[in-house]
Amino acid sequence: MSERPIDALDRAKGKKVLVKLKNSQEVTGTLRALDLHLNLWLEDVEIQGKETKKKFRIILIRGDNILYASPV
Amino acid sequence: MSERPIDALDRAKGKKVLVKLKNSQEVTGTLRALDLHLNLWLEDVEIQGKETKKKFRIILIRGDNILYASPV
Amino acid sequence: MSERPIDALDRAKGKKVLVKLKNSQEVTGTLRALDLHLNLWLEDVEIQGKETKKKFRIILIRGDNILYASPV
Amino acid sequence: MSERPIDALDRAKGKKVLVKLKNSQEVTGTLRALDLHLNLWLEDVEIQGKETKKKFRIILIRGDNILYASPV
Amino acid sequence: MSERPIDALDRAKGKKVLVKLKNSQEVTGTLRALDLHLNLWLEDVEIQGKETKKKFRIILIRGDNILYASPV
Amino acid sequence: MSERPIDALDRAKGKKVLVKLKNSQEVTGTLRALDLHLNLWLEDVEIQGKETKKKFRIILIRGDNILYASPV
Amino acid sequence: MSERPIDALDRAKGKKVLVKLKNSQEVTGTLRALDLHLNLWLEDVEIQGKETKKKFRIILIRGDNILYASPV
Repeated sequence: MSERPIDALDRAKGKKVLVKLKNSQEVTGTLRALDLHLNLWLEDVEIQGKETKKKFRIILIRGDNILYASPV
Repeated sequence: MSERPIDALDRAKGKKVLVKLKNSQEVTGTLRALDLHLNLWLEDVEIQGKETKKKFRIILIRGDNILYASPV
Repeated sequence: MSERPIDALDRAKGKKVLVKLKNSQEVTGTLRALDLHLNLWLEDVEIQGKETKKKFRIILIRGDNILYASPV
Repeated sequence: MSERPIDALDRAKGKKVLVKLKNSQEVTGTLRALDLHLNLWLEDVEIQGKETKKKFRIILIRGDNILYASPV
Repeated sequence: MSERPIDALDRAKGKKVLVKLKNSQEVTGTLRALDLHLNLWLEDVEIQGKETKKKFRIILIRGDNILYASPV
Repeated sequence: MSERPIDALDRAKGKKVLVKLKNSQEVTGTLRALDLHLNLWLEDVEIQGKETKKKFRIILIRGDNILYASPV
Repeated sequence: MSERPIDALDRAKGKKVLVKLKNSQEVTGTLRALDLHLNLWLEDVEIQGKETKKKFRIILIRGDNILYASPV
């Protein structure tokens, strides 16, 4: 069966990913689950803004905020 | 069955969550209900803006305003 | 049956609600009807802008303008 | 049967309504037809901008431009 | 059968219409075809911007750009 | 059968079209394929920005960027 | 069968493509998979911003960020 774009991330489950948001913030964390809207469940997360860094144990990112995502 | 991203929040029902809005405000409250659009029913809520803080007993956040959400 | 986020407002039918719009205006009124898009039929309405206040007997708010809503 | 938000306007068919647009212009006219997207067919219309006023015999407003509407 | 908002334009097929775009440009032309998204096929078209005027024999306007349309 | 707006472009397959983007850039090229979202496959393309001109052998424009399109 | 716009890219699988984003960044990489939303799985990627260049082994671009794409 032909590969889907989402498989690029699906194969990274349990591994670290970098997520670039449309607002230009960068999120890194371990990918636990994802769906076709690109909603992402991440764990052990860092969010890097222009001057701030935040840490979370668990976050759910709403997919429509995402520019691109990359397995690290 | 495979986990869905929304389960990251679904498991936090009855517990405190932090919700980051696209307009950069932060909302904290106890999660009572959620759906696949990320519409959220929160209770005992605080909304923190740049210079203002508001409190509500109950709010319904329209899901399309949400950047990410995190169990606290 | 499990609760839906919209029920937070549905229970407020016939009562006063506060609606925060994405453009930061605040609307208060008595909730008469709502749907899953968060389209709202309000009565005895006040809309508070930065420097203006308007009153309406009846308004229909298009749901996509809403940030959050709260029973008062 | 339970009322729908759209009924707030549907009952105003043949009567004058005020429509507030997201771009902050105000449109007044007689409501001839509407649908669930809030597309509106208005007649004998005035559109009030910051410094301009325009008149039309008939207009169709695309619903996604609407902030709220009110029977006058 | 009840009228639909789109009928306000549908009756103007073969006649001149004015189309106001969300970017505030004004388009005039003869309406040849339309659909429920408000995609419009216009002929003998003029597009009036703030300082420019353009003419086209035929254009297809993507409906999501439209603020309102009016038979002239 | 009644004409659809998309037919205005469909008849221009194999011919040169001008595409105006929402970001105000102008694209010209030979239309090879199109769909109902107005996704366009163009060949021998020029993209004219405010101060830049780019050429491509083949491009696919995502339809939601399009303001209007015109057979040249 | 008639060609679809997406075929312009589909034929470039395994080859280098240039992707122009709505935020004006340019992405180049080898196309591995795509879908009808224009979600793209790219490999050996460079993202060129105004003053920055980033490299990734694998990225998934969310299709709604794309202005156009071109086989190089």
